[in-house]
Amino acid sequence: MSAQTRAAPDPVPSDMPESSTLALFAGTARAGAAPGGATQILARYLAATRPADLPAAVRKEAHRGFLNWVGCTIGGAHHDAARNAFAALAPFAGPAHASILGRAERTDAPLAALVNGIASHVLDFDDTHLATVIHPMGPVASAALALAEARGGVSGADFVTALVLGIEAECRIGLSVFPEHYDRGWHITGTAGIFGAAAAAGRLLGLDETRMARALGLAATQPTGLRVMFGTMTKSFHPGRAAASGLQAALLAQAGFTAAEDAIEGRRGWAEIVSTRFDPEQITGDLGHRFEAAFNTYKPYACGIVIHPVIEACVNLRAAHAPDPDTITSIELAVHPLVLELTGKAAPRTGLESKFSVFHAAAVAIVRGGGGEAEFSDEAATDPRVVALRARVRATIDPTLATDAARVILVLADGTRLEEKIDHAVGSLLRPMSDEGLAAKLTALASGVLPAPRIEKLVDLCWRIETLSDIAAIAVFARPA
Amino acid sequence: MSAQTRAAPDPVPSDMPESSTLALFAGTARAGAAPGGATQILARYLAATRPADLPAAVRKEAHRGFLNWVGCTIGGAHHDAARNAFAALAPFAGPAHASILGRAERTDAPLAALVNGIASHVLDFDDTHLATVIHPMGPVASAALALAEARGGVSGADFVTALVLGIEAECRIGLSVFPEHYDRGWHITGTAGIFGAAAAAGRLLGLDETRMARALGLAATQPTGLRVMFGTMTKSFHPGRAAASGLQAALLAQAGFTAAEDAIEGRRGWAEIVSTRFDPEQITGDLGHRFEAAFNTYKPYACGIVIHPVIEACVNLRAAHAPDPDTITSIELAVHPLVLELTGKAAPRTGLESKFSVFHAAAVAIVRGGGGEAEFSDEAATDPRVVALRARVRATIDPTLATDAARVILVLADGTRLEEKIDHAVGSLLRPMSDEGLAAKLTALASGVLPAPRIEKLVDLCWRIETLSDIAAIAVFARPA
Repeated sequence: MSAQTRAAPDPVPSDMPESSTLALFAGTARAGAAPGGATQILARYLAATRPADLPAAVRKEAHRGFLNWVGCTIGGAHHDAARNAFAALAPFAGPAHASILGRAERTDAPLAALVNGIASHVLDFDDTHLATVIHPMGPVASAALALAEARGGVSGADFVTALVLGIEAECRIGLSVFPEHYDRGWHITGTAGIFGAAAAAGRLLGLDETRMARALGLAATQPTGLRVMFGTMTKSFHPGRAAASGLQAALLAQAGFTAAEDAIEGRRGWAEIVSTRFDPEQITGDLGHRFEAAFNTYKPYACGIVIHPVIEACVNLRAAHAPDPDTITSIELAVHPLVLELTGKAAPRTGLESKFSVFHAAAVAIVRGGGGEAEFSDEAATDPRVVALRARVRATIDPTLATDAARVILVLADGTRLEEKIDHAVGSLLRPMSDEGLAAKLTALASGVLPAPRIEKLVDLCWRIETLSDIAAIAVFARPA
Repeated sequence: MSAQTRAAPDPVPSDMPESSTLALFAGTARAGAAPGGATQILARYLAATRPADLPAAVRKEAHRGFLNWVGCTIGGAHHDAARNAFAALAPFAGPAHASILGRAERTDAPLAALVNGIASHVLDFDDTHLATVIHPMGPVASAALALAEARGGVSGADFVTALVLGIEAECRIGLSVFPEHYDRGWHITGTAGIFGAAAAAGRLLGLDETRMARALGLAATQPTGLRVMFGTMTKSFHPGRAAASGLQAALLAQAGFTAAEDAIEGRRGWAEIVSTRFDPEQITGDLGHRFEAAFNTYKPYACGIVIHPVIEACVNLRAAHAPDPDTITSIELAVHPLVLELTGKAAPRTGLESKFSVFHAAAVAIVRGGGGEAEFSDEAATDPRVVALRARVRATIDPTLATDAARVILVLADGTRLEEKIDHAVGSLLRPMSDEGLAAKLTALASGVLPAPRIEKLVDLCWRIETLSDIAAIAVFARPA
């Protein structure tokens, strides 16, 4: 039908529902928001909390999460996703006040937040809040560090407070709509992450309750992250965009930009639009007593969590027995059903594919004794010794095993059977990664990117953030020169 | 419950739906997108269309829409929303390659797109695609002009092509989910607008089909605009953010950033997540034959569309009879039911409130003979002559009237009854605003912002865009100095 012949519709189609016609009246005044809704209550908490209100264990967990973020971000800094994003937007960049971790360049704070957020997630090695599958630190730390550098003089103690409160905002809002929100197709790390970034940036800017609520409102109105993007660079764009947009939301609120007071819980607000379920109590309950930041976890291995117990068992068997792979007749795995559902790829051809192969994971752990990025590289996936051994891996489902448990038996040519059972893999809530493990993870991720002395210094500074008078000191050592 | 006592959840909660557990495997490979889905088909069309493929009438409508956008954007440039956004983000701005219309400052292209997009919408005076209630030109022109200025040497003909194709992408995608998407609570000008901005910017960057599809994908993953924001500055943030994010989406795609090939129609893709209905035929049907850009409309009056026929009738009565307001006993209105539902405010106290008062609109049109921004200012809303007359306005619902129709009778003290009936108000599809009317609207909006000679030149250049070798010439005259 051509433009010329199409009949002109009535300006307001007669069959248009009443709610649609309201659109013709842009700016229609809304009924006042109920006072004390979730948005306002959360904003008040975020604005009013004092550093001393945060328990030491919670602050400690923020140190661990930040250190993990530093490592992942440096490790991902040269991935195509981070490189392309920086190349695309650098020609429009402003004052070089903020660092891109693992790279020599500095750039403006929102762009640094974007690129660091992308880099932090691109290896799928970042932290996990298991109750929501949010990767909390990427959006929060990427926004907070970039802003802190641009402002200058932000103390480590204030910075840690901003991280904790950012994660509270993010994970509590995520919990309020999980799992329906996620199942619907939203990548919750992006959609919840922007609240975390806005809250953390808002803290560093010293926003009062009213402006903090507006920052949350500006965050609510731009949910980012569709799961259709999984498997593309845009997946890691989500925490990057969340970091940059959350930071900008706080800056806009600081400058007097207004937003709905009931952005999260209101009619036609965030929760109603992005989920079929909303439990505001998850946002407002036990504020100052329940800390979601205490429930962050970290991956020791550079692949999906359900393979981790198998890798740990294999690493332990290798350490205990140093078996020659050629003498191994078979590797027998007993695993939770999800393991084969999610990682049943028998013959991965690339590093990325190998992350979805429990067969590769077991074989490479026996051959090389680890499960880091190097063990899930293209090179490792096609290493003849690994390829040969993984053909002798047999996996059996055992529904009695938890997802953080596995049994592995090595059967040797002489008939010897070497068995290892993992009840709770390292990196689970019940067996968290040790501080030493986290430091080693950062070191491995940063090697080849930063000189060794800088890495050592970086680890040291991360453990004593709260002694720093200016958090920007950390960024200095996260750059190669 | 404290952090210390809360039981640690199983890493994969046993009651978590299967789809959620997939999240633990970030980067899970997806089945390949069906070839030739709506995303790819639209991208191919956007990339392959030649300027000569666009009918002259469609190109002409783009000129009219652009001129209307220029006027609205200049008129809104000094509103608090635009001013606050610029103040907040200017400290992070990059090279000053792009203009903020109506202001002396230049800034980087994404920030110019953001601020111009905000300014274009903040007066609620911008264009309307009636079938979707999208305000199409804000996101599209704000992105395209900023990018064209930054690149330099973009011809007027290429620019118009980009505008038309941007509006096609935006309005077709909007149609595919309207009205359910809007009724659900999304501000469709933001959510659809980002596609338009990405498409227009992608055209100016010369993206091929593959990269254009990725630009649309990056647009899909960051839908912006919740209707809970109506009545706050964040409402006009939506087209601004759509412009900036769409521009950045195109830049990222140009740099090699990847996104899902079936971003719009795919499983857990845009349409499934943001609407309960999706008709891909609205996107792909009659491409190159049906042009949504031909159905753009423009408001002659600075208030909601349903009041327009009343204002027009009053303006006509004043022009014909020049009645002394003091001699008017009553003004009797017969209106469509929506008019009282949406604009029934009897005693507005502010300019903003007066836009929702048919009583004010009728009175001010009789007293002053118009319905522009000045007639809906705080001053006009409290003008004693207007206030006195509006108390004598009576409105009656007549369900036989269309929304673009109204009857007005002035009853004078001597018993005279002066009647005027409007069947189709100016600005409706059946009685579009004239070119002269659009030029006068721009002139009124720009007066007080730009010197008169610049305004004249601007109008002249807008009508002959396609003769310009560099569209940036227009931006020069849209700045005060």
